[in-house]
Amino acid sequence: MKRVITISREFGSGGRTIGRMVAEKLGYAFYDEELVNEVAKRCGFSPEFIKESGEYATSRHSLLFSLATAQQFSVEGLSTMDRLYIEQTKIIEELGAKGGCVIVGRCADYILKEDPQAFHVFVYGKEEDKARRIVELYGEKDQSPRKRLLEKDQKRKVYYKNYTGRTWGQPQNYDLCLNSSVLGIDTCVNLILEATK
Amino acid sequence: MKRVITISREFGSGGRTIGRMVAEKLGYAFYDEELVNEVAKRCGFSPEFIKESGEYATSRHSLLFSLATAQQFSVEGLSTMDRLYIEQTKIIEELGAKGGCVIVGRCADYILKEDPQAFHVFVYGKEEDKARRIVELYGEKDQSPRKRLLEKDQKRKVYYKNYTGRTWGQPQNYDLCLNSSVLGIDTCVNLILEATK
Repeated sequence: MKRVITISREFGSGGRTIGRMVAEKLGYAFYDEELVNEVAKRCGFSPEFIKESGEYATSRHSLLFSLATAQQFSVEGLSTMDRLYIEQTKIIEELGAKGGCVIVGRCADYILKEDPQAFHVFVYGKEEDKARRIVELYGEKDQSPRKRLLEKDQKRKVYYKNYTGRTWGQPQNYDLCLNSSVLGIDTCVNLILEATK
Repeated sequence: MKRVITISREFGSGGRTIGRMVAEKLGYAFYDEELVNEVAKRCGFSPEFIKESGEYATSRHSLLFSLATAQQFSVEGLSTMDRLYIEQTKIIEELGAKGGCVIVGRCADYILKEDPQAFHVFVYGKEEDKARRIVELYGEKDQSPRKRLLEKDQKRKVYYKNYTGRTWGQPQNYDLCLNSSVLGIDTCVNLILEATK
């Protein structure tokens, strides 16, 4: 039984939903990208941050709490993004050591790549399915769904390359890659459970 | 239940073994690359070809028989490799229409990409495991195992790109990608059976 499962995914592929369902089935904690993003964004800049996220942390395991109570950044001369990446790395390493969680995004596959108890999944899908999904989930926008998909994944690629030196979405980075368009969400969940048991 | 399973794989990843085991479990016919290669090689050049492979065909379903009895090439001005690719394509399409088989290699994933009854798998692994595997299976050679891995996969990439325009090993070409180093051969087989049932 793997103690940590990381999920990397194309935008609109349902990877986050799959991750949440896997976490529920296993009774694992669930950490997603937007959460970390939000915290990270606030961390450096908002004076209300400590109190607000400190309170929030109790119901969200150690993630927000760790960020909220992190010592003042001791690494000077780095960009905000770099500082946040360093903080995130620490937190993900802690989560990895603690186990019992599913982490979506945030280069967690890279950060925990040497951990034999971590299992790394990549979820992707057909463009038409992903486009339909993001419109269903996030509504219509001025921008076309295909452009939104492209831009979002492009950002993930650049971010990942920048911090890991690896190519995002290359199967060799992962233990299992699932085409959610063909397999469907439920089968993806079952395959992850089967592969990690 | 999928009627055809194609397996693309890195050299040394155990993909062929996995394909054979899946075929056995499902009672499907099994077609591998070396078989087709061998037939193809003979097809254009050896005068003994027709008789020899024609006899062989009866125990190997329609694959060899189709190649052996193929009409004289009607497409002039093509390279031998192109002619063989065209013949192979015909045969793989026939196998796809007939169903009940596992096909390893030969761009079968691309040739059957529009077939909703075909399921496409990519098997890959860690370099050290693949290197060990090819030495166990094929023995020591003058060339280092790592160089042999690299050269073999490079040839597959070039061949695939040439005939499909796609990038070999990119997850989007496949329905399921399996890291055999992490999962092990038996789990790979089980996951394919679970995904295609």
